[in-house]
Amino acid sequence: MRSSLILSRRDLDFLLHEWLDVEDLVKRPRYAEHSRETFDAVLDLAEQIATEHFAPHNRKADENEPHMVDGKAVLVPEVKQALDVFVGAGLMAGEFDEEYGGMQLPHVVGQAVFAWFKAANVGTSAYPFLTMGNARLLLAHGSKEQIDTYVRPEIEGRWFGTMALSEPQAGSSLADITTKAVPQDDGTYRLTGNKMWISGGDHELTENIVHLVLAKIPGGPPGVKGISLFIVPKFLVDEDGTLGERNDVVLAGLNHKMGYRGTTNTLLNFGEGVHTPGGRPGAVGYLVGEPHRGLTYMFHMMNEARIGVGMGATVLGYTGYLHALEYARTRTQGRPAGAKDPASPAVPIIEHPDVRRMLLAAKSYAEGGLALGLYCARLVDEEQTAETEDERARAHLLLDTLTPIAKAWPSQWGPVADDLAIQVHGGYGYTRDYPVEQFYRDNRLNPIHEGTNGIQALDLLGRKVVAQGGAGLRLLGETITATTARAAGTPWAGFAADLDAAVARMGAVTATLWGTGDPDLTLANASVYLEAAGHLVVGWLWLEQALACEGSSDPFHEGKRAAARYFWRWELPRTRAQFDLLESLDRTVLDTDEAWL
Amino acid sequence: MRSSLILSRRDLDFLLHEWLDVEDLVKRPRYAEHSRETFDAVLDLAEQIATEHFAPHNRKADENEPHMVDGKAVLVPEVKQALDVFVGAGLMAGEFDEEYGGMQLPHVVGQAVFAWFKAANVGTSAYPFLTMGNARLLLAHGSKEQIDTYVRPEIEGRWFGTMALSEPQAGSSLADITTKAVPQDDGTYRLTGNKMWISGGDHELTENIVHLVLAKIPGGPPGVKGISLFIVPKFLVDEDGTLGERNDVVLAGLNHKMGYRGTTNTLLNFGEGVHTPGGRPGAVGYLVGEPHRGLTYMFHMMNEARIGVGMGATVLGYTGYLHALEYARTRTQGRPAGAKDPASPAVPIIEHPDVRRMLLAAKSYAEGGLALGLYCARLVDEEQTAETEDERARAHLLLDTLTPIAKAWPSQWGPVADDLAIQVHGGYGYTRDYPVEQFYRDNRLNPIHEGTNGIQALDLLGRKVVAQGGAGLRLLGETITATTARAAGTPWAGFAADLDAAVARMGAVTATLWGTGDPDLTLANASVYLEAAGHLVVGWLWLEQALACEGSSDPFHEGKRAAARYFWRWELPRTRAQFDLLESLDRTVLDTDEAWL
Repeated sequence: MRSSLILSRRDLDFLLHEWLDVEDLVKRPRYAEHSRETFDAVLDLAEQIATEHFAPHNRKADENEPHMVDGKAVLVPEVKQALDVFVGAGLMAGEFDEEYGGMQLPHVVGQAVFAWFKAANVGTSAYPFLTMGNARLLLAHGSKEQIDTYVRPEIEGRWFGTMALSEPQAGSSLADITTKAVPQDDGTYRLTGNKMWISGGDHELTENIVHLVLAKIPGGPPGVKGISLFIVPKFLVDEDGTLGERNDVVLAGLNHKMGYRGTTNTLLNFGEGVHTPGGRPGAVGYLVGEPHRGLTYMFHMMNEARIGVGMGATVLGYTGYLHALEYARTRTQGRPAGAKDPASPAVPIIEHPDVRRMLLAAKSYAEGGLALGLYCARLVDEEQTAETEDERARAHLLLDTLTPIAKAWPSQWGPVADDLAIQVHGGYGYTRDYPVEQFYRDNRLNPIHEGTNGIQALDLLGRKVVAQGGAGLRLLGETITATTARAAGTPWAGFAADLDAAVARMGAVTATLWGTGDPDLTLANASVYLEAAGHLVVGWLWLEQALACEGSSDPFHEGKRAAARYFWRWELPRTRAQFDLLESLDRTVLDTDEAWL
Repeated sequence: MRSSLILSRRDLDFLLHEWLDVEDLVKRPRYAEHSRETFDAVLDLAEQIATEHFAPHNRKADENEPHMVDGKAVLVPEVKQALDVFVGAGLMAGEFDEEYGGMQLPHVVGQAVFAWFKAANVGTSAYPFLTMGNARLLLAHGSKEQIDTYVRPEIEGRWFGTMALSEPQAGSSLADITTKAVPQDDGTYRLTGNKMWISGGDHELTENIVHLVLAKIPGGPPGVKGISLFIVPKFLVDEDGTLGERNDVVLAGLNHKMGYRGTTNTLLNFGEGVHTPGGRPGAVGYLVGEPHRGLTYMFHMMNEARIGVGMGATVLGYTGYLHALEYARTRTQGRPAGAKDPASPAVPIIEHPDVRRMLLAAKSYAEGGLALGLYCARLVDEEQTAETEDERARAHLLLDTLTPIAKAWPSQWGPVADDLAIQVHGGYGYTRDYPVEQFYRDNRLNPIHEGTNGIQALDLLGRKVVAQGGAGLRLLGETITATTARAAGTPWAGFAADLDAAVARMGAVTATLWGTGDPDLTLANASVYLEAAGHLVVGWLWLEQALACEGSSDPFHEGKRAAARYFWRWELPRTRAQFDLLESLDRTVLDTDEAWL
């Protein structure tokens, strides 16, 4: 597969440099060793490795999903080969500190780099994705010893990591986990319980696996306030860093998914007695940070993971779009509406307006989602390295507000881009001879994992827009209207006016919803609120992109303008009906008795 | 699987009897032998056979898709077992005339009967679906000899039929088919060419297969006006009806699809010389009707097939909804928004408003689509058996107008119902342990085959609403406003007013679109027009259903009202933005140069 079918380097360069001015980051001490050249070099490297080592086995890993042999998960060998190249090129370490052997890349560049791998092979790239998130969490909340013992091998790519939250009976509701962690005299804990949906939970890709496990210490508070976080390695680690005894983490089963099949997804049993490390029962775990604060720590990882899931959904949609575009340019079928001569030659289907409509829609979702993901990644850099405390706090607040949108919007519309990509292919797109059908199946996971989109909706309306007296919502509104103000006197003034109106409506609707005094009623329609907010935010980012293209007649910039105009004229108006519905405090759902369904 | 997870008999009874007054049909001579009892009996039979013989192998047929052995397509044996029971029960003959051994069931009852099989196993039910369509076409356009030779064995279920239209280079554009039919001295033809996407194109389910093949007779007009229709049996048939020589129809390959895998989908080569019937090259074909009128005849079958595809998309969404409903009632997770005690027991997820929202949306799509499909089927009965010529003509016109909607709307929204069904299941819904993931994959075919939804859009806006000076659109509007008039003084007056407004807008928008004098501009946004028209029509049918429930407090009727209200408040408003866009004659798509994409 050519790299131009995986992702658009031209678009990445536009977003990073023509729009987000990423080069400006090199003025900051953390990124002082970097330059446009180093950013370009690592993007070149990512493109090359993704194309040569990740894309080629994407279908094979789908057709030969992980299976259990002697209690172990066995994958096609290409997964390890690709990841060895990835690790060998230093890409696992890309964003980490130099002291851990990292490149100290800005997060926004790191996300652009990693986008290549997700787009080329989302199943294989999940292993480093999880490992990097795991390592970042431990860097933030682990002890020095934990960092030295577990994080360094992760950054070196010698060990991979997981996040083990869910249980068979507790998915969205982590309050109900029952995995138990009993303190031992030596300061360690012994864990017993079952974890479900654990991606990368077992494999032979690395010599060890660092599980980050949520569990309850007996006697703690009920619900989410009694959840603690533990490191539970697959193999115990001796003081000198060599691997010791097998811990009692046992692969109990593999989940067989519709897509995303390259990623082992497991049921793991902890402490069921298959192994008895130290001659005693229970899986050995090491408390991270303080007891009962596990969910707070985990959210640190989950927020990044949510933006990462959004990026994954985006780039799966993006590669679908690129495949559809290529197909539409080469497949001939039919004639233009005006052509009367049936003997005239058939034209490439891109000449049919309805095909261009589908391509333009897919482009607006894919590129809009990529803009959203990279914007949020840029906010991570601001949050961490902006000069002033105030700038960092504002970036944090805006990022916090945008996170549920950055997860949910691409995971709703990225799959639509893949759906359109299939439709452009016609019957061929429905066959397994063309990659788009796999993208469609792979992408269906994204609205589910890392918090379903319904959970994101509750997060946005129930927490983010009301926290700190609504400061996050105000900041978002100010940020959007700062852009719309720049559109005055440009051909985009109409788009800006529509966005201003939508910002005002979102503020009014939020007040109405929270003015009911009835949280059930407020939250009953949270999903509609999230959808409307998402379209408003992505509309704003399309205006941002359009403004960044002003004055150029380069076909690339014309394409950006066409997609911006499409989003303005075809997509943003969806929010009107959504805001109307929200404003009406509709009780249809709430008043529907379950016996009527 | 329990039958209540496949389809709702209660809903079928409601639609057939409380709404469509199907019993009234027995007053007509054709259905005089029937009664509510015979209708009930055949529905009981369908429910039983679908549950006991079709549903159980739905997953197995998906996991073991047809494969080629010695040039033949091999299926899991359960497919033949199920179809033998179906045929043995006389169900293939259900709607056909008594003189062919049929039951002369009304089409609306036949569709309700067949809905059970599609919902239980869409892959297996495709074989009789195609056979019935094939037989109906030949009954309408074949000679007596052709009917006796080919149709009788089809109705008896001894032979199955196909429709072979597409070719690798000609899918949506049938003008470009190149299969050639050369007339012979004996009045037969010899065909050579390749046909693609032929469902049921090869199998060992029956001893013969009757292919209906589009081909061009050399010297005929170019384009669609030079297409003729031929019967090409797999085995030639001797005069006494016994099977003779193998015809030169060769299975050249199987398509490997994302879903719908139980249905063999084939590439067939005609006349490539593998067999030489009568010692000469070419597949033997028999002209149906007159030369060059093949597409007209085929449309007879395609229009029925389109409504049938819509029904299939609907009932796949319907069974998805029923599975999600069952899961939501039994799966516990989390607590209501108001519950403060984390130690309180988790509740069934149906108690969460966002889950009820998803269920209500899925219900509105599934039941709305079923109402649309059965309404159209009822129109087929009116078209064929209404007392006066005028009534028959009106039914024909309304049906003709509704056909693209009856195909496209359910094939857009049925998959959304399955998408929601997965979302209600959370991670479990993404695994192959739960049937909803298969429904989602199966249903993705429906917007593609039997004319893509883009083709349906061109059919509606380019032909149906402008034919006969717009008579079809006027009739549709009158039919809808006849319903809204009945809503005066009921709680549904507001819904009726919104529908009236939408009818008026659709009329105005149609005039605007066709007032441009620029067919490219008119048709560029045809898909939006189709979507808006579909929501208007289904909104009307929800009002119809709501009115049929007035005065009852039965939970079933309450559920209908809740879904009607949902459709009114949440769905119908989508059309406003769509009509606005159409009214603006937006040129975004048309003006987007392909070089910008």
